[in-house]
Amino acid sequence: CCFVMSKALLNVGEVEKPAEPAAKQPPETEAAGTCGCNKSCNCTKAAVVFSDLYSTGTQACYLLPAMDSDAKTMTFLQEVVDILLAYIVESFDRDTKVIDFHYPNELLQMNNWELQGEPASLDDILISCRATLKYAIKTAHPRYFNQLSTGLDMVGLAADWLTSTANTNMFTYEVAPVFVLLEYVTLKKMREIIGWPDGRGDGIFSPGGAISNMYAMLLARFKMFPEVKEKGMSSVPRLVAFTSEHSHFSIKKGAAALGIGTESVISAFNYEDVLFVLLQGFVPFFVSATAGTTVYGAFDPLIAISDICKKYNIWMHVDGAWGGSLLMSRRHRWKLDGVERANSVTWNPHKMMSVPLQCSALLVREEGLMQNCNQMHACYLFQQDKHYDLSYDTGDKALQCGRHVDIFKLWLMWRAKGTIGFEAQIDKCLELSEYLYNKIKDREGYEMVFDGKPQHTNVCFWYLPPGIRHMEDKEERKKHLHKVAPVIKARMMEYGTTMVSYQPQGDKVNFFRMVISNPAATFQDIDFLIEEIERLGLDL
Amino acid sequence: CCFVMSKALLNVGEVEKPAEPAAKQPPETEAAGTCGCNKSCNCTKAAVVFSDLYSTGTQACYLLPAMDSDAKTMTFLQEVVDILLAYIVESFDRDTKVIDFHYPNELLQMNNWELQGEPASLDDILISCRATLKYAIKTAHPRYFNQLSTGLDMVGLAADWLTSTANTNMFTYEVAPVFVLLEYVTLKKMREIIGWPDGRGDGIFSPGGAISNMYAMLLARFKMFPEVKEKGMSSVPRLVAFTSEHSHFSIKKGAAALGIGTESVISAFNYEDVLFVLLQGFVPFFVSATAGTTVYGAFDPLIAISDICKKYNIWMHVDGAWGGSLLMSRRHRWKLDGVERANSVTWNPHKMMSVPLQCSALLVREEGLMQNCNQMHACYLFQQDKHYDLSYDTGDKALQCGRHVDIFKLWLMWRAKGTIGFEAQIDKCLELSEYLYNKIKDREGYEMVFDGKPQHTNVCFWYLPPGIRHMEDKEERKKHLHKVAPVIKARMMEYGTTMVSYQPQGDKVNFFRMVISNPAATFQDIDFLIEEIERLGLDL
Repeated sequence: CCFVMSKALLNVGEVEKPAEPAAKQPPETEAAGTCGCNKSCNCTKAAVVFSDLYSTGTQACYLLPAMDSDAKTMTFLQEVVDILLAYIVESFDRDTKVIDFHYPNELLQMNNWELQGEPASLDDILISCRATLKYAIKTAHPRYFNQLSTGLDMVGLAADWLTSTANTNMFTYEVAPVFVLLEYVTLKKMREIIGWPDGRGDGIFSPGGAISNMYAMLLARFKMFPEVKEKGMSSVPRLVAFTSEHSHFSIKKGAAALGIGTESVISAFNYEDVLFVLLQGFVPFFVSATAGTTVYGAFDPLIAISDICKKYNIWMHVDGAWGGSLLMSRRHRWKLDGVERANSVTWNPHKMMSVPLQCSALLVREEGLMQNCNQMHACYLFQQDKHYDLSYDTGDKALQCGRHVDIFKLWLMWRAKGTIGFEAQIDKCLELSEYLYNKIKDREGYEMVFDGKPQHTNVCFWYLPPGIRHMEDKEERKKHLHKVAPVIKARMMEYGTTMVSYQPQGDKVNFFRMVISNPAATFQDIDFLIEEIERLGLDL
Repeated sequence: CCFVMSKALLNVGEVEKPAEPAAKQPPETEAAGTCGCNKSCNCTKAAVVFSDLYSTGTQACYLLPAMDSDAKTMTFLQEVVDILLAYIVESFDRDTKVIDFHYPNELLQMNNWELQGEPASLDDILISCRATLKYAIKTAHPRYFNQLSTGLDMVGLAADWLTSTANTNMFTYEVAPVFVLLEYVTLKKMREIIGWPDGRGDGIFSPGGAISNMYAMLLARFKMFPEVKEKGMSSVPRLVAFTSEHSHFSIKKGAAALGIGTESVISAFNYEDVLFVLLQGFVPFFVSATAGTTVYGAFDPLIAISDICKKYNIWMHVDGAWGGSLLMSRRHRWKLDGVERANSVTWNPHKMMSVPLQCSALLVREEGLMQNCNQMHACYLFQQDKHYDLSYDTGDKALQCGRHVDIFKLWLMWRAKGTIGFEAQIDKCLELSEYLYNKIKDREGYEMVFDGKPQHTNVCFWYLPPGIRHMEDKEERKKHLHKVAPVIKARMMEYGTTMVSYQPQGDKVNFFRMVISNPAATFQDIDFLIEEIERLGLDL
C-alpha cells in the first residue's frame, strides 16, 4: 500500500523532490588580519584560534570571570551572535527549508551529542551551536504554520537576549526591580483591556497556558473552600468543574493534579447540567469557558455562561490562551464579549501576539486571592522587615519558587509596536485565514471540517487526492482519507517546504488544522501551502 | 532609634558612602562614516538614525519580516548586543555596583515604563534596554551572594541566546528535534551520576525546583493509587507526607495544590512517626528528604531514610535542588550517599552549577510512570500515526503543555567544561565557604547559627556590632541583634557594594545566610564581605 510510512516511500512519488536549496553559509568573517572595526568586541576574532581555547579550567582559561578575558569573552560571544544573525536571516528566507528533518536515530548519529568528562574547546562549542541550528526547525519561517506559536519578533528576541543576560528571578523586587515593575504595569494594562474597572485585580505570568489554567482552578477551589489549603480535599464536598467540549486538555490535567479527578470535569455547560450535578449532591465550583479552542478556534458564548455562573455562584474562568489576544483588535474583540464578567482569564501573548516562548498571563479579578491561596511565608525570601514596599515581592502568589522573567519581551514588543501595532498584526493574520477559507471552501478536492467562516485563524479541512474523490464506498473512502494528511505532512517535513498540523477528532478522520499566527506570512504563502498540499498529495 | 528604616538614615552613619564609581559607558560605537568591518551585520549602524525607525507598521517599517530588511535587522540586533556585551563586562568588574537601588515608587518615576497605543521608535527601544539594565541587579557580579542562583556563565549565556533564537517548544520531537534528543542524553547522564543502573529511568526539565518537587508528590500518589487521576482524592484514603524540618516550602505548597493539604505534611521522619500515622489509619505515601537545605545547607541521612521507606513502601523523594550538584564532585558526593535508593530526585543545575535560569530536572527511577500519570492524549499534538518514533514526543509526561527549552544551556556548558569542569567549579565554591567559616568562627563580633562545619556552602552567622557585644540583658540584646542584619543589608543595597541574604528562623533572630555558588567569587571577595559587614554595622 502506498500509505506505508517508510522513508523510502515518502521520498518517491509522482512528483520530483525539488532541488535542495543551497545551504546558505553565514557571511564569511575570518578575513586575514585584524579587522579595524570600532565595535565593543574589538573585532579581534580574526586573530583567534578557538580550537586551542577553553571556557574554564587551569590551562588556556579564556572566558569571564578569568583574568584579562574581557576582550576574549566579547570575541567569543560575538562569534556566537554572528552565527545567530545568519540563522535569523536564513529563517525568513523562503528559499531555505523550514526543517532539515532526520529521524531520531539518524539525528543521534549526525553529531557527537554525548557529554564527556573532559572539556571541549570553544571551537567545538561553536560547531555544536551550528549543528544545533542546522537541525532545528525554523519557527520564524514564513511557511511554518505547525503550532499556535509561530514567527519570531526581532524586538521580542532582543528582549529575550537581554533577559538571559540579566539572568535573574521574579520572586522578589530585591533581585528583579525593573522586571517586577514591568510585570505590574503590563498586567494592569491587560486587565484594563479585559474591561475590569481601572485595571484593578491581580495576576501573574506563568510557564504556559496549562499552568495558568491550573492556577485558575486552584483559586476557584480556594475561594469557595479556603480550608482546602490546610485540610485537603477530604474537608470539602465532591466538586465538579465544567468546560466546553473542545476545551484544552489542560483542564483535565489540572483536575487530575489537584486531586479533583478527571471524572469530575464535565464537558458541557448549561442550566440543566448544573441542576443535574446539584441534585446529585455535588458542588459545581468552576467553569472554564474557551475563547478560541485549540482545534477549531471557536469562542464560547461568554455572556450566557456568565449568567449561569452568577446564578449558581460558580467561578468563571476564560481560557483565552489562544483567543485572548483578539481583545487587542477593535474588529474582533466582540468575540470575547462578556470576558469582563469572568473571575479569571488565561491569555498567552506567546501565541497570537508572537512574543517569544514562553509568555502566558493569568489575570484574576479579585485582589489578594492568589497570595492567600498560595503563600507559605518562606522567611528566607519574604523577610517582613525589608526596607522597601513588600507588596512588590510577588513571588509568594505563585506555586513556583523561582520564576523565569517572561515579562520583558512582551513589554518591549508592546513598547515597539504600540497597542495598534499588535492590533494590525492580529488583524492581518485573521485576514489571511479568511483568504484561505474563501480560497478552498468551494475548491475541488477540499471539504471543510466545520460549517461557516472560522472565528479565529483556524481553518480545518480535508484534502482529497483525485484518486479518492469519487470513491463510492463511504467507509473505504474514509479509511483512505484518514491516511492522506499524515503522508502529506511527512512529505512536507522530508522536503522541508512548509509545515502544518493535522489530527483526527472524535469520529472525524485526520484533517489539516491550519492556524496563522506568523506575522511573516503573506497571501502568497497561503497560495503556496495549497499548491504544496496538492503537489504532495497528488499520487495518494 | 537608629534602626528606623528610612532612606535618610540608611545613608548617614559613622561611615562615608564611598564615591560612586563613574558610570561606565558602553564603548563608543557611533564613529563618523560607515565602518569597514566585514561582519555579518555589515557595520552600517554608524549611518543609521534609529529615532526615525520603527519595528513594524506601515511607515518606516524596518525590521524583519519587512522587505529588504536583513541588513537593517542585523544592525539593530548588533546594537542591542553591543549594549549587552558592555553590560556583561561591567557586571564582572568589582569597581561597579552590584545594584543601583531605588525604591519602587522612585523607580516608577525614573523612566517612562507605561505602555502606549502608538509605537515607539527603535531609538526608544534601545534607550529602554539601557534603562532596564541600569537598574537591574548584576547577578554576575563577583560580590553578589544573595540567592542560591548567582553568577553568569558565558557559554550558558551564549546557549540561552541561541535558545531564544530557535524559539521553540519541547512538547514534540517534530518541533524541537535536537533539543528533545539533548534532553534525553542529559537526563540519562544525570541518572547515571545518581547511580541508577545504566542511567535507566525517566525525567523531565521543569520550571523550577518547586514544580519538580510537586511532580514527585504527584507521581508518588499516582503510583500508590492510580485511580486518583480519574476519581480524585475522594477515592483514596487520607494521605500523609513526611519531610525534614528545614525542607523547602514547596513541599507544603505542593501538598496544598494537590488537594492533600498542608496539615498532612509532617515535618519529621522516623520509625515512630510512621507508626503513629499508621495507627491513626492514615496512609504514608511520600517522603521528601532534603539534600542541601535552603538555609543551613544540611543533608538528610538518605540511607537511614531509605530503610524506613523500603520497610513501609513509601515513595522516597530527594529534594536536591540545592545539594544535588554535589553529586558532580568526587570530594563531596558522599553527602548524598543513598540517593541511588530514591524513587525521584530534584536537581537544579541553575543553582550550584550556575546554569542560567531556569534549569531544574526531576529524575525518576521508574520508566513510564510520568507518562501514565500525566498523559491526556491530546490528538492535536500527539498524533499516533506520525512517521517517526513517538517515544520522543515527551510532552504528555508534563503538566505543562508548551514547555520552554531549558536543556541547551546545561548541555552546552557541560560540553564546554566537561564533568571535571563542573566538579572544579563546585569544589571551589565549597572551599570558599570553608574559608569564610574558618575566618569568622572565632572572630570577635561573630556567632555561628549552627554548630560545626557547614555541609554545603551555607554559612549562617550573626554579626554583633561593638555596641551590643557586651549587653547584659539577653532579651534586649536579642531585640537589638534582630535589627542589625536588615539594616546592614539595606545599606549594602544603598551602596551597591555587595548583597547577601538574611532571615530569622524559629526562635533565632535575624542572621546572615551566606551562600556561594558564584564562580566569579574569590577569597578576596569573602574578605571584602566581612570588611563590608563590619564597616556598615559599626554604628549599630
